[in-house]
Amino acid sequence: MSHSLLALVTRSSDAEEDRWLAHLRAAMPGEEIRSLRGLSEDERARVDVAIVANPDPADLELLPNLKWVHSLWAGVERLVAELQGFTAPVVRLTDPELARNMAEAVLAWTYYLQRDMPAYAKAQREKTWAPRPYVKPSQLRVGLLGLGKLGGRAAERLLDAGFQVSGWSRSLKSLAGVTCHAGEAGLSEMLGEADILVSLLPLTAQTRGLLNAARFAQMKPGAQIINFGRGPVIDDEALLAALRSGQIGHAVLDVFAVEPLPPEHPYWSTPGVTVLPHISAETDRVTASALVAGNIAAWRAGGQLPETVDFAAGY
Amino acid sequence: MSHSLLALVTRSSDAEEDRWLAHLRAAMPGEEIRSLRGLSEDERARVDVAIVANPDPADLELLPNLKWVHSLWAGVERLVAELQGFTAPVVRLTDPELARNMAEAVLAWTYYLQRDMPAYAKAQREKTWAPRPYVKPSQLRVGLLGLGKLGGRAAERLLDAGFQVSGWSRSLKSLAGVTCHAGEAGLSEMLGEADILVSLLPLTAQTRGLLNAARFAQMKPGAQIINFGRGPVIDDEALLAALRSGQIGHAVLDVFAVEPLPPEHPYWSTPGVTVLPHISAETDRVTASALVAGNIAAWRAGGQLPETVDFAAGY
Repeated sequence: MSHSLLALVTRSSDAEEDRWLAHLRAAMPGEEIRSLRGLSEDERARVDVAIVANPDPADLELLPNLKWVHSLWAGVERLVAELQGFTAPVVRLTDPELARNMAEAVLAWTYYLQRDMPAYAKAQREKTWAPRPYVKPSQLRVGLLGLGKLGGRAAERLLDAGFQVSGWSRSLKSLAGVTCHAGEAGLSEMLGEADILVSLLPLTAQTRGLLNAARFAQMKPGAQIINFGRGPVIDDEALLAALRSGQIGHAVLDVFAVEPLPPEHPYWSTPGVTVLPHISAETDRVTASALVAGNIAAWRAGGQLPETVDFAAGY
Repeated sequence: MSHSLLALVTRSSDAEEDRWLAHLRAAMPGEEIRSLRGLSEDERARVDVAIVANPDPADLELLPNLKWVHSLWAGVERLVAELQGFTAPVVRLTDPELARNMAEAVLAWTYYLQRDMPAYAKAQREKTWAPRPYVKPSQLRVGLLGLGKLGGRAAERLLDAGFQVSGWSRSLKSLAGVTCHAGEAGLSEMLGEADILVSLLPLTAQTRGLLNAARFAQMKPGAQIINFGRGPVIDDEALLAALRSGQIGHAVLDVFAVEPLPPEHPYWSTPGVTVLPHISAETDRVTASALVAGNIAAWRAGGQLPETVDFAAGY
């Protein structure tokens, strides 16, 4: 009599898989959870749910009785792109802890720009004592691209800290204290009023290359940018040109078209760029494993799944 | 018939004095406010209140009918040291806006350390993609040296952001959510439990050299330090040694025994030191001028002064 298995499917190292397996097993003591890498053909046939982090689509085809897929990531654009035609439902991680972490990252790096930390680092390298005028949060407007769970929580943190906040989303939202925009005209309005622009946008056909030369030209001269969403939302050549001209004063980039960012990429050494290695909001293995466990237990008990990925919309 | 004058007395540049005069005059249209530099002997005799920012004590002796002194700074240790024997009361600036600004600075630079910004800057210089494990605020304890108006407000901001907070003060305080310590034994306890130590202490006979080799040795290995109080509270040689050994992981220093920090000082180029040019909480000229105006108007109306500096305590 064969019982069902849960398979972990990733393109990560064995060590990284082992860390996930330890947390997932602790959260689901009643399940047998195995890496796909060690499964025989018979065992693969017993897998009903795959828990994935950036899986190779070919690996998922090795699981003939797969009922659904749980992503350990919130961002699923690669999965969507690679699994077009895939029919099993995909559940992505929507972890309140991730939203807390991302909102904290937005506030921390907004302070980094508001408090002129890059300029003081440069002054220190030059051994120059150069105080700069203090600009209060109430004198700065932060524009958020994306007002979903992450953007909404970020807006709250920024408002609590005294910043003026605008937000842009596909469909118009209403958030207390936030100047909300939507659509093409709304995007131009927000770009024109933001001192610091923060992108939390997922990568979709609509957002790819959204921040291009024309959009940078609509911004205030010297405006600053934080990209914590997805790299290809920014046209890299256009951003580099805008940084060189001074139209964009500084860019904090955590996400890139190719990751890790190749050593020869100009972002590493362009003045006015802060490069981060995709760390703005790391998945918390403990809370993520607990959420996955809850979703799987609910499905086993009653066959119910939380909202699944809309492959047409891309998220 | 001669009316009274207010004199601005500083060691600042003429341009800096002019900025202050413009704000002070806007806040007190009924007063005649002049720089001491342009006053005749007759005019000096008409000065009843001096508004000072780091004044030369000899300049104050030029004012024979001085009734009291209003400092534009919150920190008055230099004034106290230089004016020993001075009998006119001294009022220092206690500006809620300064406390807000300082609390914001404490939070912003605590995030700088919690979010590993110095390590990511180093990785960028080396063109290295090196994600580091994320440490949540709830996993870190910030220890505040000084729990007065500035420290109390900083504690609130840190607690709101999810950090664990300890505090140390001369006399034991009670603040909601803060583990409070006092006295010599309390200092050792707090040094042993803080991951990030923030000094907001004024410079007094008791605080000079407080953070010395023995105190650094009591801290957790790799603990980090922020000094936004006064430079000489830290024994510089001991801190440099603790940074070299790794006992102290990083130090954010905004205040120094000699300011501007001389170009040859090792702090500029010691790994693990962030040098700031005394900008953690700049006085806001608008709110400061309004507070000074209110204090002077109250004194003219009824002869009352707010709490004045205790020359024995040093603040």
